[in-house]
Amino acid sequence: MRVEVWSDINCPWCYIGKARFERALERFPHRGEVEVVHRSFELDPRAPHEARPVIPLLAAKYGMSLEQAEATEARIAENARGEGLPYAGGRDAANSFDMHRLLHFAKEHGRQGELLDALYRANFAEERSAFEPGRLVELAVEAGLDGEAAAAVLADPQAYADAVREDEATASAMGATGVPFFVLDRRLGVSGAQPAETFARALEQAWETRVPVPLTLVGEGAGGTDGAACGPDGCELPQR
Amino acid sequence: MRVEVWSDINCPWCYIGKARFERALERFPHRGEVEVVHRSFELDPRAPHEARPVIPLLAAKYGMSLEQAEATEARIAENARGEGLPYAGGRDAANSFDMHRLLHFAKEHGRQGELLDALYRANFAEERSAFEPGRLVELAVEAGLDGEAAAAVLADPQAYADAVREDEATASAMGATGVPFFVLDRRLGVSGAQPAETFARALEQAWETRVPVPLTLVGEGAGGTDGAACGPDGCELPQR
Repeated sequence: MRVEVWSDINCPWCYIGKARFERALERFPHRGEVEVVHRSFELDPRAPHEARPVIPLLAAKYGMSLEQAEATEARIAENARGEGLPYAGGRDAANSFDMHRLLHFAKEHGRQGELLDALYRANFAEERSAFEPGRLVELAVEAGLDGEAAAAVLADPQAYADAVREDEATASAMGATGVPFFVLDRRLGVSGAQPAETFARALEQAWETRVPVPLTLVGEGAGGTDGAACGPDGCELPQR
Repeated sequence: MRVEVWSDINCPWCYIGKARFERALERFPHRGEVEVVHRSFELDPRAPHEARPVIPLLAAKYGMSLEQAEATEARIAENARGEGLPYAGGRDAANSFDMHRLLHFAKEHGRQGELLDALYRANFAEERSAFEPGRLVELAVEAGLDGEAAAAVLADPQAYADAVREDEATASAMGATGVPFFVLDRRLGVSGAQPAETFARALEQAWETRVPVPLTLVGEGAGGTDGAACGPDGCELPQR
Protein backbone atom coordinates (compact mmCIF):
# COMPACT_ATOMS: atom_id res chain seq x y z
CA MET A 1 0.00 0.00 0.00
CA ARG A 2 1.31 3.42 -0.80
CA VAL A 3 0.56 6.72 0.92
CA GLU A 4 1.65 9.83 -0.93
CA VAL A 5 1.81 13.00 1.16
CA TRP A 6 1.80 16.35 -0.59
CA SER A 7 3.22 19.03 1.64
CA ASP A 8 5.37 22.12 1.87
CA ILE A 9 8.12 22.79 4.40
CA ASN A 10 6.64 26.26 4.93
CA CYS A 11 3.36 24.68 6.04
CA PRO A 12 2.96 24.22 9.79
CA TRP A 13 -0.15 22.06 9.35
CA CYS A 14 1.96 19.71 7.24
CA TYR A 15 4.41 19.37 10.14
CA ILE A 16 1.51 18.69 12.51
CA GLY A 17 -0.46 16.49 10.09
CA LYS A 18 2.60 14.34 9.49
CA ALA A 19 2.84 13.61 13.22
CA ARG A 20 -0.88 12.77 13.39
CA PHE A 21 -0.62 10.48 10.38
CA GLU A 22 2.44 8.78 11.85
CA ARG A 23 0.62 8.22 15.13
CA ALA A 24 -2.09 6.37 13.19
CA LEU A 25 0.47 4.48 11.12
CA GLU A 26 2.37 3.28 14.20
CA ARG A 27 -0.77 1.55 15.45
CA PHE A 28 -1.81 0.21 12.04
CA PRO A 29 -1.39 -3.59 12.05
CA HIS A 30 -0.18 -3.66 8.43
CA ARG A 31 2.25 -0.75 8.79
CA GLY A 32 5.07 -2.96 7.45
CA GLU A 33 3.36 -3.00 4.10
CA VAL A 34 2.80 0.75 3.88
CA GLU A 35 5.19 2.82 1.81
CA VAL A 36 5.12 6.57 2.49
CA VAL A 37 6.26 8.97 -0.23
CA HIS A 38 6.70 12.72 0.03
CA ARG A 39 5.26 14.76 -2.83
CA SER A 40 6.09 18.37 -3.56
CA PHE A 41 3.64 21.24 -3.17
CA GLU A 42 4.77 24.86 -3.03
CA LEU A 43 2.35 27.08 -1.17
CA ASP A 44 3.86 30.13 -2.84
CA PRO A 45 5.92 29.30 -5.95
CA ARG A 46 6.64 33.01 -6.40
CA ALA A 47 8.05 33.53 -2.91
CA PRO A 48 11.50 35.15 -2.91
CA HIS A 49 14.51 33.02 -2.05
CA GLU A 50 15.54 35.44 0.71
CA ALA A 51 14.00 34.42 4.02
CA ARG A 52 11.65 36.85 5.77
CA PRO A 53 10.19 36.59 9.27
CA VAL A 54 6.72 35.03 9.20
CA ILE A 55 4.85 37.30 11.62
CA PRO A 56 5.11 40.53 9.58
CA LEU A 57 4.34 38.50 6.44
CA LEU A 58 1.15 37.14 7.96
CA ALA A 59 0.16 40.55 9.27
CA ALA A 60 0.65 42.17 5.85
CA LYS A 61 -1.14 39.36 4.02
CA TYR A 62 -4.28 39.39 6.16
CA GLY A 63 -4.29 43.03 7.20
CA MET A 64 -3.82 41.90 10.81
CA SER A 65 -1.90 43.60 13.55
CA LEU A 66 1.42 42.01 14.50
CA GLU A 67 -0.25 40.91 17.74
CA GLN A 68 -3.03 39.13 15.86
CA ALA A 69 -0.50 37.42 13.59
CA GLU A 70 1.43 36.33 16.66
CA ALA A 71 -1.73 34.92 18.21
CA THR A 72 -2.42 32.91 15.06
CA GLU A 73 1.10 31.53 15.08
CA ALA A 74 0.79 30.79 18.82
CA ARG A 75 -2.37 28.78 18.18
CA ILE A 76 -0.51 26.70 15.60
CA ALA A 77 2.41 26.24 18.02
CA GLU A 78 -0.06 25.03 20.64
CA ASN A 79 -1.41 22.41 18.22
CA ALA A 80 2.15 21.32 17.40
CA ARG A 81 3.08 20.95 21.06
CA GLY A 82 -0.14 19.02 21.56
CA GLU A 83 1.34 16.46 19.19
CA GLY A 84 4.62 16.43 21.11
CA LEU A 85 6.35 18.46 18.42
CA PRO A 86 8.86 21.15 19.36
CA TYR A 87 7.90 24.57 17.99
CA ALA A 88 10.39 27.39 18.47
CA GLY A 89 8.36 30.30 17.08
CA GLY A 90 9.93 33.21 15.25
CA ARG A 91 10.34 31.17 12.06
CA ASP A 92 10.79 32.70 8.68
CA ALA A 93 9.58 31.74 5.22
CA ALA A 94 11.10 31.67 1.75
CA ASN A 95 10.86 29.88 -1.55
CA SER A 96 10.87 26.13 -0.96
CA PHE A 97 11.58 24.91 -4.50
CA ASP A 98 15.17 23.94 -3.66
CA MET A 99 13.99 21.98 -0.62
CA HIS A 100 11.60 20.00 -2.80
CA ARG A 101 14.30 19.35 -5.42
CA LEU A 102 16.57 18.10 -2.66
CA LEU A 103 13.82 15.84 -1.32
CA HIS A 104 13.58 14.17 -4.73
CA PHE A 105 17.35 13.69 -4.75
CA ALA A 106 17.07 12.19 -1.25
CA LYS A 107 14.34 9.86 -2.46
CA GLU A 108 16.68 8.41 -5.08
CA HIS A 109 19.11 7.64 -2.27
CA GLY A 110 16.59 6.18 0.13
CA ARG A 111 16.85 9.16 2.51
CA GLN A 112 13.70 11.11 1.81
CA GLY A 113 12.06 10.48 5.18
CA GLU A 114 15.21 11.48 7.01
CA LEU A 115 15.61 14.70 5.03
CA LEU A 116 11.95 15.63 5.42
CA ASP A 117 12.23 15.28 9.19
CA ALA A 118 15.43 17.35 9.20
CA LEU A 119 13.79 20.11 7.14
CA TYR A 120 10.70 20.34 9.35
CA ARG A 121 12.84 20.34 12.46
CA ALA A 122 15.07 23.08 11.02
CA ASN A 123 12.09 25.23 10.05
CA PHE A 124 9.83 24.78 13.06
CA ALA A 125 11.85 23.50 16.02
CA GLU A 126 15.07 25.48 15.79
CA GLU A 127 15.80 29.13 16.43
CA ARG A 128 18.21 29.29 13.51
CA SER A 129 16.70 29.81 10.06
CA ALA A 130 16.30 26.78 7.81
CA PHE A 131 16.93 29.10 4.87
CA GLU A 132 20.46 30.24 5.86
CA PRO A 133 22.98 29.81 3.05
CA GLY A 134 24.64 26.41 3.31
CA ARG A 135 21.99 25.13 5.73
CA LEU A 136 20.39 22.74 3.21
CA VAL A 137 23.70 20.97 2.57
CA GLU A 138 24.19 20.58 6.33
CA LEU A 139 20.70 19.11 6.66
CA ALA A 140 21.30 16.77 3.72
CA VAL A 141 24.43 15.47 5.45
CA GLU A 142 22.49 15.04 8.71
CA ALA A 143 19.98 12.99 6.72
CA GLY A 144 22.75 10.67 5.59
CA LEU A 145 23.30 12.12 2.11
CA ASP A 146 26.60 12.99 0.49
CA GLY A 147 27.22 16.72 1.04
CA GLU A 148 29.05 17.33 -2.23
CA ALA A 149 26.37 15.58 -4.27
CA ALA A 150 23.65 17.57 -2.44
CA ALA A 151 25.52 20.82 -3.12
CA ALA A 152 25.76 19.89 -6.81
CA VAL A 153 21.99 19.31 -6.95
CA LEU A 154 21.34 22.68 -5.30
CA ALA A 155 23.75 24.45 -7.66
CA ASP A 156 21.94 23.13 -10.75
CA PRO A 157 18.47 24.73 -10.88
CA GLN A 158 17.26 22.12 -13.38
CA ALA A 159 18.12 19.13 -11.17
CA TYR A 160 14.88 17.43 -10.10
CA ALA A 161 12.91 20.52 -11.12
CA ASP A 162 10.69 18.43 -13.41
CA ALA A 163 10.02 15.96 -10.60
CA VAL A 164 8.78 18.80 -8.38
CA ARG A 165 6.57 20.18 -11.13
CA GLU A 166 5.17 16.75 -11.96
CA ASP A 167 4.18 16.28 -8.29
CA GLU A 168 2.45 19.64 -8.35
CA ALA A 169 0.61 18.85 -11.58
CA THR A 170 -0.59 15.57 -10.09
CA ALA A 171 -1.84 17.35 -6.95
CA SER A 172 -3.69 19.82 -9.09
CA ALA A 173 -5.22 17.04 -11.23
CA MET A 174 -6.46 15.38 -8.05
CA GLY A 175 -8.10 18.57 -6.90
CA ALA A 176 -5.73 19.41 -4.05
CA THR A 177 -5.72 23.12 -3.32
CA GLY A 178 -3.99 23.02 0.03
CA VAL A 179 -1.68 20.85 2.07
CA PRO A 180 -1.09 18.50 3.76
CA PHE A 181 -2.90 16.24 1.29
CA PHE A 182 -2.68 12.49 1.81
CA VAL A 183 -3.47 10.02 -0.97
CA LEU A 184 -3.76 6.28 -0.30
CA ASP A 185 -3.11 4.03 -3.30
CA ARG A 186 -4.41 6.80 -5.54
CA ARG A 187 -7.93 5.98 -4.42
CA LEU A 188 -8.55 7.56 -1.04
CA GLY A 189 -7.67 11.08 -0.02
CA VAL A 190 -7.36 12.84 3.31
CA SER A 191 -7.18 16.60 3.18
CA GLY A 192 -5.58 18.59 5.99
CA ALA A 193 -4.11 17.78 9.38
CA GLN A 194 -7.04 15.60 10.42
CA PRO A 195 -7.10 13.80 13.79
CA ALA A 196 -5.04 10.58 14.01
CA GLU A 197 -8.34 8.67 14.20
CA THR A 198 -9.27 9.86 10.72
CA PHE A 199 -5.94 8.69 9.35
CA ALA A 200 -6.44 5.36 11.11
CA ARG A 201 -9.83 5.01 9.45
CA ALA A 202 -8.43 5.90 6.04
CA LEU A 203 -5.60 3.34 6.41
CA GLU A 204 -8.10 0.70 7.44
CA GLN A 205 -10.44 1.51 4.58
CA ALA A 206 -7.63 1.52 2.00
CA TRP A 207 -6.38 -1.80 3.35
CA GLU A 208 -9.77 -3.46 3.25
CA THR A 209 -10.42 -2.37 -0.31
CA ARG A 210 -6.87 -2.90 -1.54
CA VAL A 211 -7.60 -5.65 -4.06
CA PRO A 212 -6.59 -3.79 -7.19
CA VAL A 213 -9.17 -2.86 -9.73
CA PRO A 214 -9.09 -5.08 -12.83
CA LEU A 215 -6.17 -4.13 -15.01
CA THR A 216 -6.56 -3.29 -18.65
CA LEU A 217 -4.07 -5.47 -20.47
CA VAL A 218 -2.09 -3.91 -23.28
CA GLY A 219 -0.41 -6.16 -25.80
CA GLU A 220 -0.82 -8.19 -28.90
CA GLY A 221 -3.52 -10.84 -29.12
CA ALA A 222 -6.63 -11.27 -27.05
CA GLY A 223 -5.95 -10.68 -23.41
CA GLY A 224 -2.44 -9.52 -24.19
CA THR A 225 -0.99 -12.72 -22.82
CA ASP A 226 1.00 -13.76 -25.83
CA GLY A 227 4.28 -12.25 -24.70
CA ALA A 228 6.81 -14.88 -23.72
CA ALA A 229 6.65 -15.53 -20.02
CA CYS A 230 7.66 -17.95 -17.30
CA GLY A 231 5.08 -19.45 -14.99
CA PRO A 232 4.96 -22.16 -12.36
CA ASP A 233 4.93 -24.66 -15.23
CA GLY A 234 7.99 -23.34 -16.95
CA CYS A 235 9.02 -20.83 -19.58
CA GLU A 236 7.43 -20.73 -22.99
CA LEU A 237 7.77 -18.97 -26.27
CA PRO A 238 4.81 -16.91 -27.41
CA GLN A 239 2.17 -18.96 -29.17
CA ARG A 240 1.48 -17.18 -32.41
CA MET B 1 3.84 7.61 -13.36
CA ARG B 2 4.84 4.33 -11.80
CA VAL B 3 5.65 1.04 -13.50
CA GLU B 4 5.82 -2.00 -11.25
CA VAL B 5 7.56 -5.03 -12.72
CA TRP B 6 6.93 -8.43 -11.19
CA SER B 7 9.73 -10.82 -12.04
CA ASP B 8 11.94 -13.62 -10.82
CA ILE B 9 15.70 -13.83 -11.23
CA ASN B 10 15.27 -17.43 -12.38
CA CYS B 11 13.10 -16.23 -15.28
CA PRO B 12 14.93 -15.68 -18.57
CA TRP B 13 11.92 -13.93 -20.12
CA CYS B 14 12.08 -11.43 -17.27
CA TYR B 15 15.71 -10.66 -18.18
CA ILE B 16 14.69 -10.25 -21.84
CA GLY B 17 11.42 -8.42 -21.13
CA LYS B 18 13.26 -5.92 -18.93
CA ALA B 19 15.55 -5.03 -21.86
CA ARG B 20 12.57 -4.64 -24.19
CA PHE B 21 10.73 -2.46 -21.71
CA GLU B 22 13.84 -0.34 -21.17
CA ARG B 23 14.24 0.14 -24.91
CA ALA B 24 10.70 1.55 -25.00
CA LEU B 25 11.31 3.65 -21.89
CA GLU B 26 14.49 5.21 -23.33
CA ARG B 27 12.49 6.60 -26.24
CA PHE B 28 9.50 7.65 -24.16
CA PRO B 29 9.38 11.47 -24.06
CA HIS B 30 8.20 11.54 -20.43
CA ARG B 31 10.73 8.96 -19.17
CA GLY B 32 11.94 11.46 -16.55
CA GLU B 33 8.57 11.15 -14.82
CA VAL B 34 8.45 7.36 -14.82
CA GLU B 35 9.40 5.52 -11.66
CA VAL B 36 10.19 1.82 -12.11
CA VAL B 37 9.80 -0.53 -9.14
CA HIS B 38 10.77 -4.20 -8.94
CA ARG B 39 8.18 -6.50 -7.38
CA SER B 40 8.86 -10.02 -6.16
CA PHE B 41 7.48 -13.14 -7.80
CA GLU B 42 8.90 -16.59 -7.13
CA LEU B 43 8.33 -19.05 -9.96
CA ASP B 44 8.94 -21.92 -7.58
CA PRO B 45 8.67 -20.99 -3.91
CA ARG B 46 9.42 -24.61 -2.97
CA ALA B 47 12.68 -24.81 -4.94
CA PRO B 48 15.63 -25.97 -2.84
CA HIS B 49 18.28 -23.46 -1.85
CA GLU B 50 21.02 -25.60 -3.37
CA ALA B 51 21.62 -24.66 -6.97
CA ARG B 52 21.07 -27.28 -9.67
CA PRO B 53 21.93 -27.06 -13.39
CA VAL B 54 18.93 -25.93 -15.42
CA ILE B 55 19.17 -28.33 -18.40
CA PRO B 56 18.57 -31.59 -16.43
CA LEU B 57 15.85 -29.80 -14.43
CA LEU B 58 14.01 -28.78 -17.60
CA ALA B 59 14.43 -32.26 -19.09
CA ALA B 60 13.03 -33.93 -15.97
CA LYS B 61 10.17 -31.44 -15.66
CA TYR B 62 8.91 -31.78 -19.23
CA GLY B 63 9.99 -35.35 -19.92
CA MET B 64 12.33 -34.02 -22.61
CA SER B 65 15.71 -35.35 -23.65
CA LEU B 66 18.70 -33.31 -22.52
CA GLU B 67 19.14 -32.30 -26.17
CA GLN B 68 15.59 -30.97 -26.36
CA ALA B 69 16.06 -29.06 -23.12
CA GLU B 70 19.27 -27.59 -24.50
CA ALA B 71 17.48 -26.54 -27.68
CA THR B 72 14.81 -24.76 -25.59
CA GLU B 73 17.46 -22.93 -23.61
CA ALA B 74 19.33 -22.09 -26.85
CA ARG B 75 16.16 -20.52 -28.26
CA ILE B 76 15.88 -18.33 -25.19
CA ALA B 77 19.58 -17.42 -25.45
CA GLU B 78 19.00 -16.39 -29.05
CA ASN B 79 16.16 -14.09 -27.99
CA ALA B 80 18.40 -12.60 -25.30
CA ARG B 81 21.26 -11.95 -27.72
CA GLY B 82 18.73 -10.43 -30.12
CA GLU B 83 18.20 -7.79 -27.42
CA GLY B 84 21.96 -7.28 -27.06
CA LEU B 85 21.99 -9.20 -23.77
CA PRO B 86 24.89 -11.51 -22.94
CA TYR B 87 23.73 -15.08 -22.25
CA ALA B 88 26.36 -17.54 -21.08
CA GLY B 89 24.30 -20.76 -21.03
CA GLY B 90 24.84 -23.50 -18.50
CA ARG B 91 23.03 -21.54 -15.78
CA ASP B 92 21.59 -23.16 -12.70
CA ALA B 93 18.47 -22.49 -10.68
CA ALA B 94 17.64 -22.37 -6.99
CA ASN B 95 15.26 -20.78 -4.53
CA SER B 96 15.14 -17.02 -5.15
CA PHE B 97 13.48 -15.86 -1.93
CA ASP B 98 16.74 -14.42 -0.55
CA MET B 99 17.34 -12.50 -3.76
CA HIS B 100 13.91 -10.93 -3.48
CA ARG B 101 14.45 -10.06 0.18
CA LEU B 102 17.74 -8.42 -0.76
CA LEU B 103 16.04 -6.46 -3.55
CA HIS B 104 13.65 -4.97 -0.99
CA PHE B 105 16.59 -4.03 1.22
CA ALA B 106 18.23 -2.45 -1.85
CA LYS B 107 15.05 -0.51 -2.56
CA GLU B 108 15.22 1.09 0.86
CA HIS B 109 18.71 2.28 0.02
CA GLY B 110 17.93 3.53 -3.48
CA ARG B 111 19.91 0.71 -5.11
CA GLN B 112 17.20 -1.65 -6.33
CA GLY B 113 17.79 -1.10 -10.04
CA GLU B 114 21.53 -1.63 -9.64
CA LEU B 115 21.07 -4.86 -7.66
CA LEU B 116 18.49 -6.22 -10.09
CA ASP B 117 20.89 -5.67 -13.00
CA ALA B 118 23.70 -7.34 -11.04
CA LEU B 119 21.52 -10.36 -10.23
CA TYR B 120 20.37 -10.88 -13.82
CA ARG B 121 23.93 -10.49 -15.08
CA ALA B 122 25.19 -12.99 -12.49
CA ASN B 123 22.51 -15.53 -13.36
CA PHE B 124 22.41 -15.25 -17.14
CA ALA B 125 25.60 -13.60 -18.40
CA GLU B 126 28.30 -15.18 -16.22
CA GLU B 127 29.73 -18.69 -16.18
CA ARG B 128 29.92 -18.66 -12.41
CA SER B 129 26.75 -19.52 -10.47
CA ALA B 130 24.74 -16.65 -9.03
CA PHE B 131 23.80 -18.99 -6.18
CA GLU B 132 27.35 -19.64 -4.86
CA PRO B 133 27.66 -19.01 -1.11
CA GLY B 134 28.73 -15.42 -0.49
CA ARG B 135 27.86 -14.37 -4.05
CA LEU B 136 24.81 -12.31 -3.05
CA VAL B 137 26.85 -10.17 -0.68
CA GLU B 138 29.42 -9.55 -3.43
CA LEU B 139 26.65 -8.53 -5.81
CA ALA B 140 25.11 -6.26 -3.17
CA VAL B 141 28.45 -4.51 -2.79
CA GLU B 142 28.78 -4.18 -6.58
CA ALA B 143 25.34 -2.55 -6.54
CA GLY B 144 26.60 0.05 -4.07
CA LEU B 145 25.18 -1.45 -0.89
CA ASP B 146 26.97 -1.99 2.40
CA GLY B 147 28.24 -5.58 2.46
CA GLU B 148 27.86 -6.08 6.20
CA ALA B 149 24.31 -4.78 6.20
CA ALA B 150 23.45 -7.00 3.21
CA ALA B 151 24.95 -10.02 4.98
CA ALA B 152 22.85 -9.24 8.06
CA VAL B 153 19.68 -9.13 5.93
CA LEU B 154 20.55 -12.47 4.36
CA ALA B 155 21.33 -14.01 7.75
CA ASP B 156 17.90 -13.07 9.12
CA PRO B 157 15.24 -15.09 7.26
CA GLN B 158 12.48 -12.75 8.47
CA ALA B 159 14.11 -9.61 7.07
CA TYR B 160 11.93 -8.26 4.24
CA ALA B 161 10.14 -11.62 4.03
CA ASP B 162 6.75 -9.91 4.49
CA ALA B 163 7.56 -7.44 1.74
CA VAL B 164 8.24 -10.31 -0.69
CA ARG B 165 5.01 -12.05 0.29
CA GLU B 166 2.99 -8.87 0.00
CA ASP B 167 4.29 -8.37 -3.56
CA GLU B 168 3.29 -11.91 -4.39
CA ALA B 169 -0.17 -11.49 -2.90
CA THR B 170 -0.67 -8.32 -4.95
CA ALA B 171 0.40 -10.11 -8.14
CA SER B 172 -2.04 -12.87 -7.39
CA ALA B 173 -4.86 -10.39 -6.68
CA MET B 174 -4.17 -8.78 -10.06
CA GLY B 175 -4.43 -12.10 -11.81
CA ALA B 176 -0.74 -12.52 -12.68
CA THR B 177 0.14 -16.20 -13.11
CA GLY B 178 3.48 -15.73 -14.84
CA VAL B 179 6.26 -13.20 -15.18
CA PRO B 180 7.42 -10.74 -16.31
CA PHE B 181 4.27 -8.82 -15.46
CA PHE B 182 4.29 -5.05 -15.90
CA VAL B 183 1.73 -2.81 -14.21
CA LEU B 184 1.45 0.89 -15.07
CA ASP B 185 -0.09 3.09 -12.36
CA ARG B 186 -2.11 0.08 -11.19
CA ARG B 187 -4.36 0.52 -14.20
CA LEU B 188 -2.66 -0.98 -17.24
CA GLY B 189 -0.95 -4.34 -17.41
CA VAL B 190 1.49 -5.92 -19.84
CA SER B 191 2.00 -9.64 -19.49
CA GLY B 192 5.18 -11.28 -20.76
CA ALA B 193 8.25 -10.16 -22.66
CA GLN B 194 6.25 -8.33 -25.29
CA PRO B 195 7.96 -6.41 -28.12
CA ALA B 196 9.33 -2.95 -27.24
CA GLU B 197 6.58 -1.45 -29.39
CA THR B 198 3.93 -2.89 -27.08
CA PHE B 199 5.65 -1.37 -24.05
CA ALA B 200 5.88 1.93 -25.91
CA ARG B 201 2.13 1.81 -26.57
CA ALA B 202 1.38 0.96 -22.95
CA LEU B 203 3.54 3.85 -21.69
CA GLU B 204 1.82 6.22 -24.10
CA GLN B 205 -1.64 5.01 -23.12
CA ALA B 206 -0.88 5.23 -19.40
CA TRP B 207 0.50 8.74 -19.86
CA GLU B 208 -2.48 9.97 -21.84
CA THR B 209 -4.94 8.67 -19.30
CA ARG B 210 -2.90 9.56 -16.26
CA VAL B 211 -5.31 12.08 -14.73
CA PRO B 212 -6.12 10.20 -11.58
CA VAL B 213 -9.59 8.91 -11.01
CA PRO B 214 -11.60 11.00 -8.54
CA LEU B 215 -10.43 10.34 -5.03
CA THR B 216 -12.77 9.32 -2.27
CA LEU B 217 -12.11 11.72 0.57
CA VAL B 218 -11.98 10.30 4.08
CA GLY B 219 -12.41 12.65 7.00
CA GLU B 220 -14.75 14.48 9.24
CA GLY B 221 -17.43 16.70 7.77
CA ALA B 222 -18.81 16.85 4.27
CA GLY B 223 -16.06 16.48 1.73
CA GLY B 224 -13.56 15.69 4.43
CA THR B 225 -11.99 19.08 4.07
CA ASP B 226 -12.24 20.30 7.61
CA GLY B 227 -8.73 19.26 8.62
CA ALA B 228 -6.49 22.24 9.22
CA ALA B 229 -4.52 23.00 6.10
CA CYS B 230 -2.41 25.63 4.41
CA GLY B 231 -3.28 26.87 0.95
CA PRO B 232 -2.16 29.66 -1.34
CA ASP B 233 -4.19 32.03 0.83
CA GLY B 234 -2.58 31.01 4.09
CA CYS B 235 -3.02 28.56 6.95
CA GLU B 236 -6.27 28.12 8.76
CA LEU B 237 -7.73 26.30 11.68
CA PRO B 238 -10.51 23.85 10.93
CA GLN B 239 -13.92 25.47 10.75
CA ARG B 240 -16.17 23.44 12.94
